[in-house]
Amino acid sequence: MHVSQPVFELANDALADKLQNRKIVVVVDSTVDALYGEMLRAYASQRLECVGIKTFAASEHMKTLESLQDVVTFAAEAGLPRKGIFVAVGGGVTLDIVGAAAAMYRRGTEFFRIPTTVVGAVDVSVGIKQGVNFGGKKNFLGAFHVPLGGINDPRFFASLPRRELSAGLAEIIKVGLLLDPSLFELLERHGEDLFTTAFQAPQSVALETMMRAELAMMRELQPNLWEHDLRRLVDFGHTFSSWLEPASAYALPHGHAVALDMLVSTALAVEARLCSYELLRRLVAMYRAVELPLEHPLVRTSSLLEALAPMRLHREGALNLVVPVELGLGTYLQDVEPEQLDRALRLVARVGVR
Amino acid sequence: MHVSQPVFELANDALADKLQNRKIVVVVDSTVDALYGEMLRAYASQRLECVGIKTFAASEHMKTLESLQDVVTFAAEAGLPRKGIFVAVGGGVTLDIVGAAAAMYRRGTEFFRIPTTVVGAVDVSVGIKQGVNFGGKKNFLGAFHVPLGGINDPRFFASLPRRELSAGLAEIIKVGLLLDPSLFELLERHGEDLFTTAFQAPQSVALETMMRAELAMMRELQPNLWEHDLRRLVDFGHTFSSWLEPASAYALPHGHAVALDMLVSTALAVEARLCSYELLRRLVAMYRAVELPLEHPLVRTSSLLEALAPMRLHREGALNLVVPVELGLGTYLQDVEPEQLDRALRLVARVGVR
Repeated sequence: MHVSQPVFELANDALADKLQNRKIVVVVDSTVDALYGEMLRAYASQRLECVGIKTFAASEHMKTLESLQDVVTFAAEAGLPRKGIFVAVGGGVTLDIVGAAAAMYRRGTEFFRIPTTVVGAVDVSVGIKQGVNFGGKKNFLGAFHVPLGGINDPRFFASLPRRELSAGLAEIIKVGLLLDPSLFELLERHGEDLFTTAFQAPQSVALETMMRAELAMMRELQPNLWEHDLRRLVDFGHTFSSWLEPASAYALPHGHAVALDMLVSTALAVEARLCSYELLRRLVAMYRAVELPLEHPLVRTSSLLEALAPMRLHREGALNLVVPVELGLGTYLQDVEPEQLDRALRLVARVGVR
Repeated sequence: MHVSQPVFELANDALADKLQNRKIVVVVDSTVDALYGEMLRAYASQRLECVGIKTFAASEHMKTLESLQDVVTFAAEAGLPRKGIFVAVGGGVTLDIVGAAAAMYRRGTEFFRIPTTVVGAVDVSVGIKQGVNFGGKKNFLGAFHVPLGGINDPRFFASLPRRELSAGLAEIIKVGLLLDPSLFELLERHGEDLFTTAFQAPQSVALETMMRAELAMMRELQPNLWEHDLRRLVDFGHTFSSWLEPASAYALPHGHAVALDMLVSTALAVEARLCSYELLRRLVAMYRAVELPLEHPLVRTSSLLEALAPMRLHREGALNLVVPVELGLGTYLQDVEPEQLDRALRLVARVGVR
């Protein structure tokens, strides 16, 4: 749900209503804590049955089994009972770790999500996939664990750095391009505004953008929550990127890796005559407006090919590389030849120069 | 299912049929491997799609998150895919760790159980609770994860040490006493035979004992698999024992801790005039026949009281201490006073002396 007044405003009943006087442990990203910790603590002590607040210096590097252990140990020492609730306040990394911790704690405890980043709100908070990185692989350990609920408060975005904003916009572009043409067109008109105002204005556009992105994700995920079907349009941008992120030692934020993947995938579709050049051009124009990368040293044919083998294994032998066909329509490639990648990368370089 | 010929006999189709040429990783207890490893390896290479066999020196001390990580790392390196299967061969510890690892691996992978101990067959393999010990607490991290299936082969029991056998009999006594009077009476007649022959004779009695114990457990667990109802008769013997085991630094096997707990719980019921002295006497006679302990240095009023607080937390504020009323009937105590425990322990000492 979206709230119309700050989620930690004492007079706002939304969170207290959702948690119903049950015992909770809050895990809050340390940056968020520095900015909003005072409000959070006042709300927790006056409106909630909070048995402990743990701050967590979230980063993709910290998305480890050790961090999960820290969360679990903290909750055990705070005496969080089996029917207590973990409340995660932060970006995707915080939400994922706390979700995975809740899934294991006393063999399964409920959790509640308050995303403070755009990616957290439109992407992480829509799914039920919890996890930590392991053995150099993204989200290799975890669970499908359904949260009790969540609250979105776009006011948090006001304090996000630019690269967090562009990373979030990448996930929204993904949804718009494949699932909701109106959303894509909305971003073409207002993407730059949303980026420069950190989603604070125009307010109605920000709200529509968030709602459309979440709804389209939900519609797409809902019939296949447990991923028995491994062909998923929402995996657009999530094939090469799963390799790019760890390969960059997580210097590339998830959303930027997704953006680079979408660019290559779209160029592959153009080269294969599946998709128009015009759509690729519109995508590139949008990237420019919101400061998404058009190139990266790791985006090379040889390195991208390396990404395909583990993804094929993850998807049970089928590559299922999602590529766009037109706005609102995608399809899957089951194989990619080195020459195709070469041509696609040359195409990206050309259109990138404008 | 129970098999009539050795499970790893090359001509036995049972396991191959169940695993259907899917990729598997086998995790086998190292003692079992020493005894049956050759048969297992021959079967795995000729009848199964086995991508790796990991031996594991199982003990309660090793039931850790680190062991779980080892299992997961091994499977990742062996390339076990998302739709592969973990096959656990061993006692309760091995089954529990592999179950928990499977629950987390790639966010949830199937697993298959081949118990080689009595406890593994009648207790662990009937439930869906997977877990590892953490922070001094039994099974504190884990998952409810439904296995693909399992195969019971009582031939494995022939090589079990005496204390493993008596520990297994404790779990069967638990089931008989509260859920199946015929099973309890069967044990009164044949418990000693089953113990001395390691369940190899009389064969029909051994089979009936195993089947009755498993069926009674299943009937009781089935409507409440996820434990939304925290009053469970199968928790008989599992209140004080959850404290005794770690307090003994796991020198007490699980089944022996359960036996001591059942003894104290039954004596509490006798002292509360809920249960006849005669039933306590019959229980003690059975313990003698199968070498179950009647006393332990940790079984003291002060230490047993310590066990109650964390269990109350685990069961959401209600103690739900299971005590017998008569054969096939139990009830729950919600409070235990020190004086009651004092009297119960004196009663146990008296009947123990005979």
